[in-house]
Amino acid sequence: MERTRIEKVAQEITKAGLGGLLVCPSEELLFLTGFTPMQCERFQGLFITASGSCFYVCNLLYKGEVENAFAGAFPVYTWMDGESMTETVGRVLNEYGLSGATLGTNSSAQAFNVLDIAADCGVSFVNGLAVLEEARIIKNEEEKEDLRRAARIADDVFTQVLSFIKPGLKELDIFNFLISKMTEAGGDKAWAIVASGPNSSYPHYHGVSRVIEEQDMMILDFGCTVNGMFSDMSRTVFVGDITEKQKEIYAIVRKSNEAGEAAAITGAYVPDVDKASRDIIDEAGYKECFVNRLGHGIGYMIHEGPDIKKSNRRNLEPGMAFSIEPGIYIAGDIGMRIENIVLTTEDGNEILNHSTKDIIIIKN
Amino acid sequence: MERTRIEKVAQEITKAGLGGLLVCPSEELLFLTGFTPMQCERFQGLFITASGSCFYVCNLLYKGEVENAFAGAFPVYTWMDGESMTETVGRVLNEYGLSGATLGTNSSAQAFNVLDIAADCGVSFVNGLAVLEEARIIKNEEEKEDLRRAARIADDVFTQVLSFIKPGLKELDIFNFLISKMTEAGGDKAWAIVASGPNSSYPHYHGVSRVIEEQDMMILDFGCTVNGMFSDMSRTVFVGDITEKQKEIYAIVRKSNEAGEAAAITGAYVPDVDKASRDIIDEAGYKECFVNRLGHGIGYMIHEGPDIKKSNRRNLEPGMAFSIEPGIYIAGDIGMRIENIVLTTEDGNEILNHSTKDIIIIKN
Repeated sequence: MERTRIEKVAQEITKAGLGGLLVCPSEELLFLTGFTPMQCERFQGLFITASGSCFYVCNLLYKGEVENAFAGAFPVYTWMDGESMTETVGRVLNEYGLSGATLGTNSSAQAFNVLDIAADCGVSFVNGLAVLEEARIIKNEEEKEDLRRAARIADDVFTQVLSFIKPGLKELDIFNFLISKMTEAGGDKAWAIVASGPNSSYPHYHGVSRVIEEQDMMILDFGCTVNGMFSDMSRTVFVGDITEKQKEIYAIVRKSNEAGEAAAITGAYVPDVDKASRDIIDEAGYKECFVNRLGHGIGYMIHEGPDIKKSNRRNLEPGMAFSIEPGIYIAGDIGMRIENIVLTTEDGNEILNHSTKDIIIIKN
Repeated sequence: MERTRIEKVAQEITKAGLGGLLVCPSEELLFLTGFTPMQCERFQGLFITASGSCFYVCNLLYKGEVENAFAGAFPVYTWMDGESMTETVGRVLNEYGLSGATLGTNSSAQAFNVLDIAADCGVSFVNGLAVLEEARIIKNEEEKEDLRRAARIADDVFTQVLSFIKPGLKELDIFNFLISKMTEAGGDKAWAIVASGPNSSYPHYHGVSRVIEEQDMMILDFGCTVNGMFSDMSRTVFVGDITEKQKEIYAIVRKSNEAGEAAAITGAYVPDVDKASRDIIDEAGYKECFVNRLGHGIGYMIHEGPDIKKSNRRNLEPGMAFSIEPGIYIAGDIGMRIENIVLTTEDGNEILNHSTKDIIIIKN
C-alpha cells in the first residue's frame, strides 16, 4: 500500500470537510493500493477516513484475490451473494464511527450502489473527485519521467503509423496498429481514437468501421501508460491531398495550439491560458466550432486535474501535467485537433511530445 | 430509436413509482437507442419520463455525434466545458416537469455526476437497475437465436484453444487467442478471463501475466456478442496431469452444475434452483468454497436479470436466459467452475453451450 499517498488523501478529505472517501476499482484505487480488481455490479471499494484509517468492503467472491493483493494492509469485510450488501456496509461504517458522515466518491463509484448505501446505511455522499485530484496534481520526478517515456512511445508510434495508413484500410486497422505498436514498445493500457473523414468532426468519436478514402482528413488521438502514467497526443493528417479550406483551418488550429502551449507556464492563471488559445479560433471566425475545454490534467488517469478551462480559477504550479488540445469541429464535415502534453517547470514549461505540427499529407 | 423498448421501460418506471429514469452510456443505452457514445467524466445520458418522453443531455463536445446517431428521435440539450452542467440539467428537468421527481439510475450512471445533479437540480435518485432489467428479462425469438449463435462461437473457440494451450505460454497469450478467434468468428465485444494455477481460485481474477506450468489447472471464462447478445461459458482444464484431489473436486462441481441445469426450468422457484446446485457442494464438505450466486441473467449485458440466488424470490418464466456456474474456490490454491447458459422454454429449458464437461487433460 502507498501509505504516503493515503495520508495525502486523508489530509485532503479533512480540508474538504468530509468524514471519508470511497474509492471503487479504478486507476485511483491502483494509485493508492497498487492493485485494482475487476468491477462488476457487486459493490466494492476502499473507504478512507479523515484520520487515514482504511478498510475495504467487497463481495465474498473477491475476498481471496483482494486479500492476496492488499497483503494485510487493511481489513477486508465481505458479504455473500444472496445476503444484503448494505447490511454489511452499514455495520462496518458504524464500527469505524462513520454513521451520519458525509463521504466523497471517486470517479468509478457506481451511482446505483452508492444510492443503495445512502438509503440504507445512514451516511450521505458527495462528489469527491477533487479530493483525489488534489492529492496527486503535482507530479514527482519519477512520475515526470514516466510521463516523458509514455509521450515518447506515442511520438515513436506516430512516426510508424504514417507509413501504415493508406486508402482502403478501416479505422479499425489503424486502431489495431496503434495499439499493438504501443504495446510492443512497452506501453500498457494502450488506447486510441481513429476518426476519419466526417467522423473527425466528432471529438470523442466512438466507432471503428469506416473505410479510409483518398482525400480524407484523419484525427489520430492515442496514448498508453508507463508505470501507470498516461500519454495522450493528437495529430490531424491528410490522405492523398489537402484542400485550401483545410489548409486554412489547420493553420488556425496550429496557431491556437502554439499560443496555448506558450501561455501554459508556471504562474499562469488557467482561464487566461484557455483564452490565449481560444481567442485565435474565435477571432478567425470559428468560435462555435471549438466545442471543448482547452485541456485536461493527465497522470494516473487520462483525464484528471487540472482542467484547462475558464471556470478553473487557479494558477498553474510547477509539476502539473495537462493537455493543450484546441480543435475546430464542423459537425458531419471537418474536424482538426493538435494535442501535446505540457508539464509545468520551475521557470516555464516542458512540452512532452515532439512530433511535428507541420502539415502531413500521406501519399502511397 | 427502439420505441417499443422505450415504452416498455416507461411502463416499468410507472410500476416502480418513479418520475423517470436516467440511462447513461452503456449497453442499456445501446439497447434503447441503437447507439452509445464514449463515456468520460462529463455527464451525459438519456432521461425517460414515466409517460415515455425522452430527452438527452450532454456536453457540447458530444452534440454532433449523438445528434447524428439519434437522428432526431429526441431533443439533445448541451452545455459547454467551463459552464455549469447542473444549470443545464436543472433547467431541462424543470421544462419536462421533473422538478422534485425521484429518478432511477442505470448501471453506468457515475455517482459523482448523479450526486452533483441531486445537490443542485431539485431531484432525487434511486437505484433503477431493476426497471431496465424487467423491461428485457424475457427474450424474444431473435434475441434467443442471437444468444444461441454467441454461445456457438464460444463453444467453437473452446475446441480451438485446447490445441493452443501449452506450458510456457502466458495467460495473456491464451487471452489474446480467445479474443482473436471469437472476433474472427464474427463475435463482437469478445472478453475473457484466463486464470491459471492458484489464480483459478479467484473467480473474477484480474490479471494476465502468469506463465502456464505443467500440472496447472486453468479456468477459461469467456464470451462475445452477436447482435448485442452475450455468451459466457467457463470450463476448467488441466495441463499435463490431474491429481486425485482435483478429480474429486471436479466431480463435485460437475454434479452441482448438472443439478443446477436440471433444476433451472420454467416454473422453478429461483432460490430452489440455487439450492439444488449448492446442496451438492455443501454436502461434499465445500460449503465455504462456493463463494458466489449460482448464476446471473444474460442478454445485452453479461450480467443482467434474473440473478439465480436465494434472495431472488421469483419463479422462472419462459424466455429467461442465465448462467449456471457453481464453483469451488480455495483461495491461493485451487479453483474450478463449469458454466453454461440456460434458456427457459415453455416446457423446461434449453442448454445453449454444448462443450463437454468431461475432464480435459491437455498434453503436448
